[in-house]
Amino acid sequence: MVKVIATFSVQADNLDIFLTLAKELVGTTVHEEGCISYGMLQDVNNPGKLIMVEEWESRDALDKHLASTHFTTLVPQMGKHTERETEISICNSLF
Amino acid sequence: MVKVIATFSVQADNLDIFLTLAKELVGTTVHEEGCISYGMLQDVNNPGKLIMVEEWESRDALDKHLASTHFTTLVPQMGKHTERETEISICNSLF
Repeated sequence: MVKVIATFSVQADNLDIFLTLAKELVGTTVHEEGCISYGMLQDVNNPGKLIMVEEWESRDALDKHLASTHFTTLVPQMGKHTERETEISICNSLF
Repeated sequence: MVKVIATFSVQADNLDIFLTLAKELVGTTVHEEGCISYGMLQDVNNPGKLIMVEEWESRDALDKHLASTHFTTLVPQMGKHTERETEISICNSLF
């Protein structure tokens, strides 16, 4: 299994449009083959800090997601509303 | 439900001792009342980046964990082996 943690710093004025795009991304991605879970968290003390938490059956399933039309279309649009580069960690579960 | 994402940057030479302490913390915490899940991820491209992903039934359960003896004993020991301040986000799940 592969897990992904992606941390977005979103401009306060653009939070609504960012979340609309993110919700569309999540709604499509959860139906992809090999997607175990895919969801968005919001820091209660910093509403502009959004964290995507993802679980994939394999690296191959994740790579197919990264190449999908909805990913390559929506993620660049989401990136227009962030304050800095998104931090993405592809992870193994230790314990 | 409350989720927590805590990101540690661990000194390369101290990764083994950090993970020994973290494993003890996880092993005890998963038996706490209100703990849904509690686990440690490792960035495949940066082994010193460790991410704790936690799910708690309530903020009250999380607060009890933060005040527990194993937390207040082990986390400061873990902190001695990190390169910078740990980033902790207490989060709500949006979608």
